[in-house]
Amino acid sequence: MRRLRDVGEHAWLAHLLARLGRRRPTRDARILVGPGDDGAVVRGAARLVLTTDTLVDQVHFRRGWLTAAALGRRAFAVNASDLAAMGAVPRWALLALEASPRMPVAELDALALAFAGAAERAGARLVGGNVARGPHLALTVALVGEAPGRIVTRAGARAGDAVYVTGVLGASGAARRAGRLPEPPRRTRAGVALARVASAMIDVSDGLVQDLTHVCRASGVGATVEIERLPVAPSCRRALGGRAAAFAATEGEDYELLVAVPAARERALRRLAPRLGCRLTRIGRVTRGRPGVTLVDGRGRRVRLARGGFDHFRR
Amino acid sequence: MRRLRDVGEHAWLAHLLARLGRRRPTRDARILVGPGDDGAVVRGAARLVLTTDTLVDQVHFRRGWLTAAALGRRAFAVNASDLAAMGAVPRWALLALEASPRMPVAELDALALAFAGAAERAGARLVGGNVARGPHLALTVALVGEAPGRIVTRAGARAGDAVYVTGVLGASGAARRAGRLPEPPRRTRAGVALARVASAMIDVSDGLVQDLTHVCRASGVGATVEIERLPVAPSCRRALGGRAAAFAATEGEDYELLVAVPAARERALRRLAPRLGCRLTRIGRVTRGRPGVTLVDGRGRRVRLARGGFDHFRR
Repeated sequence: MRRLRDVGEHAWLAHLLARLGRRRPTRDARILVGPGDDGAVVRGAARLVLTTDTLVDQVHFRRGWLTAAALGRRAFAVNASDLAAMGAVPRWALLALEASPRMPVAELDALALAFAGAAERAGARLVGGNVARGPHLALTVALVGEAPGRIVTRAGARAGDAVYVTGVLGASGAARRAGRLPEPPRRTRAGVALARVASAMIDVSDGLVQDLTHVCRASGVGATVEIERLPVAPSCRRALGGRAAAFAATEGEDYELLVAVPAARERALRRLAPRLGCRLTRIGRVTRGRPGVTLVDGRGRRVRLARGGFDHFRR
Repeated sequence: MRRLRDVGEHAWLAHLLARLGRRRPTRDARILVGPGDDGAVVRGAARLVLTTDTLVDQVHFRRGWLTAAALGRRAFAVNASDLAAMGAVPRWALLALEASPRMPVAELDALALAFAGAAERAGARLVGGNVARGPHLALTVALVGEAPGRIVTRAGARAGDAVYVTGVLGASGAARRAGRLPEPPRRTRAGVALARVASAMIDVSDGLVQDLTHVCRASGVGATVEIERLPVAPSCRRALGGRAAAFAATEGEDYELLVAVPAARERALRRLAPRLGCRLTRIGRVTRGRPGVTLVDGRGRRVRLARGGFDHFRR
């Protein structure tokens, strides 16, 4: 098996660039200088949306949990999710890899080509990157996106807004307990559509309660979520039983969109909903008062959870 | 001493964003959404230049070699160097950190604030980032730049062009042998100026011979370098003696600019030279033939080197 140390950084990159060049389905006239130089040169846009996120081996994934190709797709998807939460679509991608010299070249190839493929399916292009020696595998992605319409931040939620979430929650957490890591949902189309009516939006990466808390803090509002309304994934219900809803409320990496919508835009939302490409569930409302999330049961009684969500440095 | 695990990811980020907000000297009207959301939103430009590079502990630096603030500045500088080599100036910066939970908060603060300060001094802004748990410290930067004028790649060198290098070579390698890592030179202004006359340009990050080989391959040309003409840093001469020139030809991380200039633009280059803010030395010429670099002594005799330059995965 050929490993990175057998081939070397520069030969591997040259080989990868050749493969990328061959498989490219169409030329993109907006790329003036593609990968392989000190920087890529692309045509700009009036507004750019920039984001970056990292996946680290043993922290965000374990090698046995997914294939190299799935890891490449995932690195793109989790970053595209951040853009979707702004109402933006990805356009240009940079992929910075850290890898051990012992990393098999075939795996690194599969990872990079799958990343490029995921970018292309989303309308974006891998235009640059880097590979550095590191203690173990890590993928840092930077995306430059564009917003076709309205841009939504975390900061616009107002008391009285309804709170919605796309898709289902808890599937990723349940799979992780079983040593798997499912593909994140693609919510770019939903994000662009929801941005037309949302007062605030975020993607659920650290767990619903924690991410809604981020929205509350940025907006200076509180929020109440009815735990029984949460769209808990069937796989999560099967694995967690009676604890499934609490688990789904706090487990991270669902990459669904959490949206606040003013009452005045509810009609417009109902018109949009069939075209989102995913389920949309009303789970609560934005309230006055101290920033924070209150979970309640069907009778309005407060539910307390043991943990709040994912934080990289506290457990 | 407070460490990252005592504070947590979200509290540290909130604290950092508050400090960044307070120290910001002027508001930038081109930032529509600053750091702290899922993405930053900035006003675009007609042409964007994108680059990314990573610094990994124990690979690119050791903690004892430089302060946390110097490391933050360095992470910005090595990326700005890639933009300079295209003739571009940095405008927007993303900083993705991997850090151990044991990392002292004061050091991470110093690192991030110094990064932001370096960006501002260069006319850029830190608009987003990420912090993830990792086995040890790593900094991945993505820069979005703009080119005020002509953009230069590695691919335009033609036989007969003269080869120049800015500044001095070997200083970084000599310092590294002594357990230090000096600040990279700032060549943004020189890069923009040289782009007006250059046929090809690259920054010297892997060593002069190797980086000139990259230019040769991209341009389909050869190059001859007179080793006695190399602007060897005095510190390198002192440390390496008779081996200084060969050392300076192959050691990486000088972050000087290596430029090919057609004969027809030599007069324009002479007019530019006094305004580059650094020395500029003619070291060789571009030749016909197989891509590769030939080193010669003062009498034109070929000089062979033991090693070619830096490759992350081969030693």
